[in-house]
Amino acid sequence: MIDKEIDSALREIKNFPKKGINFKDITSILLRPKLGSKILDLLVEKLKSTKLDAIVGVESRGFLFGYSLAMKLQIPFVPARKSGKLPGLVVQKKYSLEYGQAMLEIHKNDIKSDWNILIHDDLLATGGTAVAASELIKMLGANVAGYAFLISLKSLNGDKKLSKFSDNIISLADY
Amino acid sequence: MIDKEIDSALREIKNFPKKGINFKDITSILLRPKLGSKILDLLVEKLKSTKLDAIVGVESRGFLFGYSLAMKLQIPFVPARKSGKLPGLVVQKKYSLEYGQAMLEIHKNDIKSDWNILIHDDLLATGGTAVAASELIKMLGANVAGYAFLISLKSLNGDKKLSKFSDNIISLADY
Repeated sequence: MIDKEIDSALREIKNFPKKGINFKDITSILLRPKLGSKILDLLVEKLKSTKLDAIVGVESRGFLFGYSLAMKLQIPFVPARKSGKLPGLVVQKKYSLEYGQAMLEIHKNDIKSDWNILIHDDLLATGGTAVAASELIKMLGANVAGYAFLISLKSLNGDKKLSKFSDNIISLADY
Repeated sequence: MIDKEIDSALREIKNFPKKGINFKDITSILLRPKLGSKILDLLVEKLKSTKLDAIVGVESRGFLFGYSLAMKLQIPFVPARKSGKLPGLVVQKKYSLEYGQAMLEIHKNDIKSDWNILIHDDLLATGGTAVAASELIKMLGANVAGYAFLISLKSLNGDKKLSKFSDNIISLADY
């Protein structure tokens, strides 16, 4: 099963980025192209009954599978980035992380108000970033059609926060 | 031709990230999936006679086409990131940017010493980042087999610096 394959490919780093957090590092998955393709094919399969007009991928690990998935689905990809990284006109949303605070931005002219949008990131933890991305999408009048993560840390209950926007929450490996 | 298509899709932002720099923003290309696919197909075509074992993509815009290209070629992808972002054991290289200074890192165990590696980023400017990535690859005993950029700012002569490592420098649109 894919969750076992992801688990055996994942690198876990203790006490990163700070003491007490065991960081699940997906960069080791990037070394395995067959697993990468399998993940992408599975996401396409799981999304086949979801009408999607675009993917919003969260900086920067969400750019990896996010853009590859957008290419496979042949739909636009819109990056959500930390403050000051996107050069054009943006909408902004402040949010709390598992460890700290940050501001998320999206180019305001890159999302159309009738779009159904999938939000993608590598990992769902507390859901702070995904909620901020969802709120940016709502601010622009568009619809959150679902979420796709490689990994979900179930004990942090991020999915409860996201279900306010969409119940269509895909995760390939739960911890 | 692809350079014309890229040019018409690009967004140019004046005085970003600081006064006097006209930033070529490739995120507008991400909104056009057909153009994205064409770019990927063309890179595959241009690389077909280059023996490659992995792609190093530079954070974070280099993750977009970089990982999609690695998926198409079915070879490993290794991210090169700014200091403190990669959680595992890293090699580091300080470098100068067009506007500032930074440190680039690669997970040291993710590159094998006999690998031939393509370095990818969205844009070649002065070449500082690509040189740092090249030096990290050499530090790990591997070979720089070439470079692939969407855009090259020819007047900044970045390609002269890179030719020390490899003459195989692909750019789809030159300015």
